[in-house]
Amino acid sequence: MSASVLYMSVSLDGFIADPDDYLGGDDGHRLHNWFAPGGQFAELTGPAAELIDEAKACGAVLAGRRTAELMDHWGGDHNGLPIFVPSHRPPGPAARWGYPLVTYVTSGIADAMKQAKAAAGERNVFVIGGYTARRALEAGVLDELQIHQVPVLLGRGRRLFEDLPSQIELDVLRVIDTPEATHIRYRVRR
Amino acid sequence: MSASVLYMSVSLDGFIADPDDYLGGDDGHRLHNWFAPGGQFAELTGPAAELIDEAKACGAVLAGRRTAELMDHWGGDHNGLPIFVPSHRPPGPAARWGYPLVTYVTSGIADAMKQAKAAAGERNVFVIGGYTARRALEAGVLDELQIHQVPVLLGRGRRLFEDLPSQIELDVLRVIDTPEATHIRYRVRR
Repeated sequence: MSASVLYMSVSLDGFIADPDDYLGGDDGHRLHNWFAPGGQFAELTGPAAELIDEAKACGAVLAGRRTAELMDHWGGDHNGLPIFVPSHRPPGPAARWGYPLVTYVTSGIADAMKQAKAAAGERNVFVIGGYTARRALEAGVLDELQIHQVPVLLGRGRRLFEDLPSQIELDVLRVIDTPEATHIRYRVRR
Repeated sequence: MSASVLYMSVSLDGFIADPDDYLGGDDGHRLHNWFAPGGQFAELTGPAAELIDEAKACGAVLAGRRTAELMDHWGGDHNGLPIFVPSHRPPGPAARWGYPLVTYVTSGIADAMKQAKAAAGERNVFVIGGYTARRALEAGVLDELQIHQVPVLLGRGRRLFEDLPSQIELDVLRVIDTPEATHIRYRVRR
């Protein structure tokens, strides 16, 4: 059964980025050091490599507009996967004319997830962006969270979780314990 | 070597209490359900029992004033242990006259921790309170954090971590994986 999964690296104090959108910390990419130390993708082995392979096995991407535009839609696809962007505004020129694999969905996040799941088929949907993850949680269309909890207190930045309108129970599916990060997989209980 | 250790149950979204100081969630004690379901201490076995025993083996308590007063200083001692309260204001009547094991320290948190460590001897200092933990981190006198990460999104409440003035690196000492909570022990790197 296909699941929608948020993959997110988070500091212990709950931050996913610096205030200026760098990935945290004095070196600007502290939160991704577990798989890309110094900003360079590393040759990974062991549990961290399995996590990356798992993420790569997804069949479609649902990405928040802010991140998608910040990343120029990853050049038009996300490692070959189609990208769905929920937004109330129409896409800019590049996404509208230049990127056939990028689809803006103006009919709401539930509909955007439905389209992403249809594109993914049997595979999972890779969810990108804190705001988008919160809206998906609220709409009841986020199935799992893969949190990479990094052993650092960044002190400030953009939070993964701001206020949510109601309590949401989770089940711990799996914990992978490495020195660089504690990787916890949650399923949203319904 | 004696360590100062913050023990704290935290929701995945970083909350340690409701806005009204209950321990979170629709039932008012969601965050403590892993050891006291429904507000009643349970007969624990396994890793959770070991964690409680470990906490009970501490030799002194450093508690924030807000929590200490809210709990009426636990009746004058914390399971028999002396309690140190850093505060710039003098204690109220009960703490001043009625509780010989409660000591208010007005000379700062570093001094309060020093006194707590002296009282604890070879044993650890049990640190209570989010605000106090942040001040101890800033002052460089918090050695470890024992986080009980509860698989729930509370949505709102009081946060364990607010803004800190600088980045603080941690080492993961131990991860205990249970369905009720992911117990992660961190050491503050210096």
